[in-house]
Amino acid sequence: MEDIVADDFEAMWRDLLPVGRSASSGGYFRQPFGGAEREAMAWFHERAEALGLDVEADPVGNTVAWWGGPPTAGGPKAVLTGSHLDSVLDGGAFDGPLGVVSALAAVERLRAAGVSPERPVGVAVFVEEEGSRFGLACLGTRLATGALPWERAAELRDRDGVRLVDALERAGFPEDPRHVEWTELRDRIGCFVELHVEQGRDLVDRDAPVGVASAIWPHGRYRFDFAGEANHAGTTRMEDRHDPMLTYAMTAIAANKQARLSGQRATFGRVDVHPNGTNAVPSRVSAWLDARAESAQHLEEMLAGVERLGRERAGRDGTTLEVVAESVSPEVRFDTELAQRIVAGHDWPVIPTAAGHDAGILQSAGVPTAMLFVRNPTGVSHSPDEHAEMGDCLAGVDALAATLERLAT
Amino acid sequence: MEDIVADDFEAMWRDLLPVGRSASSGGYFRQPFGGAEREAMAWFHERAEALGLDVEADPVGNTVAWWGGPPTAGGPKAVLTGSHLDSVLDGGAFDGPLGVVSALAAVERLRAAGVSPERPVGVAVFVEEEGSRFGLACLGTRLATGALPWERAAELRDRDGVRLVDALERAGFPEDPRHVEWTELRDRIGCFVELHVEQGRDLVDRDAPVGVASAIWPHGRYRFDFAGEANHAGTTRMEDRHDPMLTYAMTAIAANKQARLSGQRATFGRVDVHPNGTNAVPSRVSAWLDARAESAQHLEEMLAGVERLGRERAGRDGTTLEVVAESVSPEVRFDTELAQRIVAGHDWPVIPTAAGHDAGILQSAGVPTAMLFVRNPTGVSHSPDEHAEMGDCLAGVDALAATLERLAT
Repeated sequence: MEDIVADDFEAMWRDLLPVGRSASSGGYFRQPFGGAEREAMAWFHERAEALGLDVEADPVGNTVAWWGGPPTAGGPKAVLTGSHLDSVLDGGAFDGPLGVVSALAAVERLRAAGVSPERPVGVAVFVEEEGSRFGLACLGTRLATGALPWERAAELRDRDGVRLVDALERAGFPEDPRHVEWTELRDRIGCFVELHVEQGRDLVDRDAPVGVASAIWPHGRYRFDFAGEANHAGTTRMEDRHDPMLTYAMTAIAANKQARLSGQRATFGRVDVHPNGTNAVPSRVSAWLDARAESAQHLEEMLAGVERLGRERAGRDGTTLEVVAESVSPEVRFDTELAQRIVAGHDWPVIPTAAGHDAGILQSAGVPTAMLFVRNPTGVSHSPDEHAEMGDCLAGVDALAATLERLAT
Repeated sequence: MEDIVADDFEAMWRDLLPVGRSASSGGYFRQPFGGAEREAMAWFHERAEALGLDVEADPVGNTVAWWGGPPTAGGPKAVLTGSHLDSVLDGGAFDGPLGVVSALAAVERLRAAGVSPERPVGVAVFVEEEGSRFGLACLGTRLATGALPWERAAELRDRDGVRLVDALERAGFPEDPRHVEWTELRDRIGCFVELHVEQGRDLVDRDAPVGVASAIWPHGRYRFDFAGEANHAGTTRMEDRHDPMLTYAMTAIAANKQARLSGQRATFGRVDVHPNGTNAVPSRVSAWLDARAESAQHLEEMLAGVERLGRERAGRDGTTLEVVAESVSPEVRFDTELAQRIVAGHDWPVIPTAAGHDAGILQSAGVPTAMLFVRNPTGVSHSPDEHAEMGDCLAGVDALAATLERLAT
């Protein structure tokens, strides 16, 4: 029986592997409500229906396949698992899909083993987890839990200016979510368990194929707007310039140094230059700092250090710096009791992560939540090189099936 | 009579001022064959025809308004003046249009004064001088002089992937330039004089409203491709990263320092990051170095210094750097004899410039060429803040009219 599930896992994985993969980089482009992501979602519908699950979607496209039917009013709350199928730009194969495929395989295993759940078990696919299109990570779960009001989300725009509400309509969700009544997810589920490829090398260092999350580090995204004076790149004497590119460059180096010295994380991975012409000193450089730290205090100290060094350099360059916090997420501590129930009798290490997840949103919404991590041999993620060995993936399915059985019966 | 021309100059200037101006920045967006640039070109047609000039355009849109009809085979070669009407992205009002409006005003003045030229006088508007759309500066004059074969130009693409040949067709130039016979401009004109706002402060320092160009500095555009390893911005330890953004940042600072120390110019004003996501360590950063120097040797030394410092940093970051020379233009020395004829009897200083111009292409094609500069009080150009005082502009019209009279009679 185990072998049948392993074969099915591998078959599902093979089905999903080409969807949205770039021929040149080998990376994935599965932006929410775009062709590739919708194809992956259609695959999920098909596969879940083939397993005899009841598939339902909310007005923003969050989709749940229910084993034992959806939870009913007055009935027991559900055990939810699953993850997401969207990717960052040029992302890896595992981040998201591994959790979805493993969840389907785990349900299949439990059914084949004759397990009869006492409460509904759902396999969820949440939309826009990465924030790669509308700029807000975990958009689907923020909406499903009420953490983000639909009024605000509907007007979010992607880089081409398309509003979320219009992208939804084009993807076959014609009802404006602002005008739909909807029972919040947290009122229907008793707990959530997300399986995810590890995005670091803690499990490699601990020689463990599977682990359980303790907490998510605090995380901030800050827009740094450096303003100077546009000018001709040929004729303007170096000493007459007010070049914001230099202020940005020094700030990026300072951020890296701050994070290295303090053992935290700081990244400038996105830059927008105006006018971005080869022969023009820019008038403006906007750059986004992604910062994560082991505590809120460490995060604040690191940000303050980067900002101070940026302002000092701006003073020398004759430029200005404005910092806008686009999102700051506090630490999320996953449910300790749930983690204890899951690891009891297993040798799965309990480790923190610096990555945000839908699981963090659900935990913050009051749903007891846990995460299972599957070992990542290189630690690389958000990259075409992201990888997990098949043996470790199947160990993840085992762990998830055991966990669901424990929670649902 | 002078006052009438001054009034007409100001009226023409007012007509052109709103065309393609951004309401938010006050800068100009007149990209070749786009709406605003075509509107400016239509204005030129109208104005030239109102002056009774014969307007002709070549198959790529370079347009000349002839006083005394176009040059004929066997007849005297023409005196050509004029400039361009396209702008960099978010450029200034004067760069280009000042030379076109001044040329029309100068012809008007000479006609009003009863001057009768012994050879045709043409007012030219060349297309894509800035290279803001198809990436190659002085595209129009490169094609008109045969410096660039039409076969190569036709396939140039803009940032949206539109080919030049298709942009031309949409702009009303339906004949593929590859299939049109055309007499090269250099066979029809005896000399060229371009009036241009100064893009520096030499004339301010010399307290002169008008000057004449001696030479254009050597100029290179180089693409720096920094490659690293994409990764998750939250979970990847700083010491495990290969982040090309850091290598780029240090290289940009090094380029600035090299140019400052040696009295040359080096600018990184355009950057392209992949995947450019807030939560991803980039896999690739491409950045364009615009470098100009007083001699070819200075240019080479500066480039070598920047490249060496970039590679040293790449070694420390675990990234790689490839440098591609996209264009390298040697020094252009304008025709000394022509400059002497122009300045004889005037106190116009003769100064070098670090900016490329159509005048440089025509000089390099063997056409004796000169440039007149009009004082720029701030030296700022390629920026909404670019400026020239009306009195200096009118002094420029005086100087251009005197020059054309001297050359055409």
